[in-house]
Amino acid sequence: MRLRLRPVDSSFFDLFTDSARHLVSGAALLAEVMDDSVDRADVARRMHDAEHAADETTHQLIRKVNSTFVTPFDREDIYALASGLDDVMDHMDEVVDMIEVYEVKVLPPALSDQVVVLQRCAELTAQAMPRLQSMKDLSEYWIEINRLENQGDKNHRRILAKLFSGEYKAMEVLKLKDIVEALEAAIDDFETVANTIEQIAVKES
Amino acid sequence: MRLRLRPVDSSFFDLFTDSARHLVSGAALLAEVMDDSVDRADVARRMHDAEHAADETTHQLIRKVNSTFVTPFDREDIYALASGLDDVMDHMDEVVDMIEVYEVKVLPPALSDQVVVLQRCAELTAQAMPRLQSMKDLSEYWIEINRLENQGDKNHRRILAKLFSGEYKAMEVLKLKDIVEALEAAIDDFETVANTIEQIAVKES
Amino acid sequence: MRLRLRPVDSSFFDLFTDSARHLVSGAALLAEVMDDSVDRADVARRMHDAEHAADETTHQLIRKVNSTFVTPFDREDIYALASGLDDVMDHMDEVVDMIEVYEVKVLPPALSDQVVVLQRCAELTAQAMPRLQSMKDLSEYWIEINRLENQGDKNHRRILAKLFSGEYKAMEVLKLKDIVEALEAAIDDFETVANTIEQIAVKES
Repeated sequence: MRLRLRPVDSSFFDLFTDSARHLVSGAALLAEVMDDSVDRADVARRMHDAEHAADETTHQLIRKVNSTFVTPFDREDIYALASGLDDVMDHMDEVVDMIEVYEVKVLPPALSDQVVVLQRCAELTAQAMPRLQSMKDLSEYWIEINRLENQGDKNHRRILAKLFSGEYKAMEVLKLKDIVEALEAAIDDFETVANTIEQIAVKES
Repeated sequence: MRLRLRPVDSSFFDLFTDSARHLVSGAALLAEVMDDSVDRADVARRMHDAEHAADETTHQLIRKVNSTFVTPFDREDIYALASGLDDVMDHMDEVVDMIEVYEVKVLPPALSDQVVVLQRCAELTAQAMPRLQSMKDLSEYWIEINRLENQGDKNHRRILAKLFSGEYKAMEVLKLKDIVEALEAAIDDFETVANTIEQIAVKES
Repeated sequence: MRLRLRPVDSSFFDLFTDSARHLVSGAALLAEVMDDSVDRADVARRMHDAEHAADETTHQLIRKVNSTFVTPFDREDIYALASGLDDVMDHMDEVVDMIEVYEVKVLPPALSDQVVVLQRCAELTAQAMPRLQSMKDLSEYWIEINRLENQGDKNHRRILAKLFSGEYKAMEVLKLKDIVEALEAAIDDFETVANTIEQIAVKES
């Protein structure tokens, strides 16, 4: 049998799981905000709460890394993973924020396709986090995230082509493009998280 | 008493202080350029000079890290701090540059609110740099930078809402949005610098 | 004579050379796409193929770093160089992609000036890669890349000034600005690659 040289500190894994669960909440709020009839100011308030909660988890992780002598994997990988998860939340929050600040009334329905991708990415990430402890069955997770990111890329191109088709005015394109790009950035962030986990798994194997 | 294991090389601290002082000059030039009646080409020239001077300091820092065997704190933290300060200058220079290249004649007065935030950030950073040597009284610095960054965030949202309110034409929004975002990026860079210093302080404590 | 403490693994250098050669192909495809009479969908297909080939080389490099015990230079420098080269390709691919997705019919001729800069950067980088093994004659490479990046910067300002001169409609500016910025980002990426090589050379000297 292979002996672990480093003692296991389960609470790092718990914190990563918490962090990913905030993203599941964030993605659900994005799904709500897509509906043009919803009270968007209310969704924005709840998204900011979710973002603050996620921030708190990130800070706990950073404090824990800084105060722990033996970490379950390399310190810089823990930082990278914590800040990668935090980046997803920031981009989700940005989406809701821009819809509010730009006073966008009608969102193109195709944006919901990206939210579906984000919800699936969030669920898969939340399910993968507890498996970091055993390092088992992670490859199916990052393969699926990569597939979803490719799907998101195709959606993104299709949405941009629509925005620039002449159907929308320049001012509307300016607003919607920012929102569309923040959605895509959140999907890319999930891929960065998956790549970080792949790197960690390679080192530990 | 606690003995320092690493000898102190004061000139790293001097160079960081120089670097931050360039940012005080840069922020003052931003304050000048906000005035629609000023000779903007002249301010741009002086900003480019300030940017070159800041670049020179950054290069001195990098050369010093590469040629010094024992550094006052971790090599990668010195790099991070030097390049963080350099990023602020680049974004300040970009603001002035875009005003000139886009031939913007009238700047929305609310942009000055962001310049006030930048001036305060620059002063606080320049005052904090010499304290890196003793690592004393730094927490008040980074708490205040975080407060200023929050203030900048609120100003930013308010300015964007104004830009998209219908008062400006799409072409004008395109130009002003870039400028507004570079101002916000410079404020974010100050927060990154403060976070780097917080990390260094945690390691050294 | 100076003895090398680390054994030389020539295939890292071969892979870096391959990676840079993909950029020579990418830059040639950009030159093709600038011609308004070309079949742009066909160029886009070939660019995506080039991008996939470059991705494969990057993955080979990453796998090699992860599975090699003694690397020719620091592991993180190999990562930085591999991902720096990969970033250039991504931005080149993005240029062609946006021209297609935004259905841009007529490109401002000045964009070709940036493609000339990119072609020269790609050639110089491909020529420099084999010299990583001996670490000889690299300074002329990075000095020239820095000169080219300055040239690209001047071109970029001139192109933006033209876009915002009033000659183009806001919608057209929105499209072209993205393309122009991706061209400039690719040039900046070449400078990042050159800076990474300079850092490696300083450490090895």
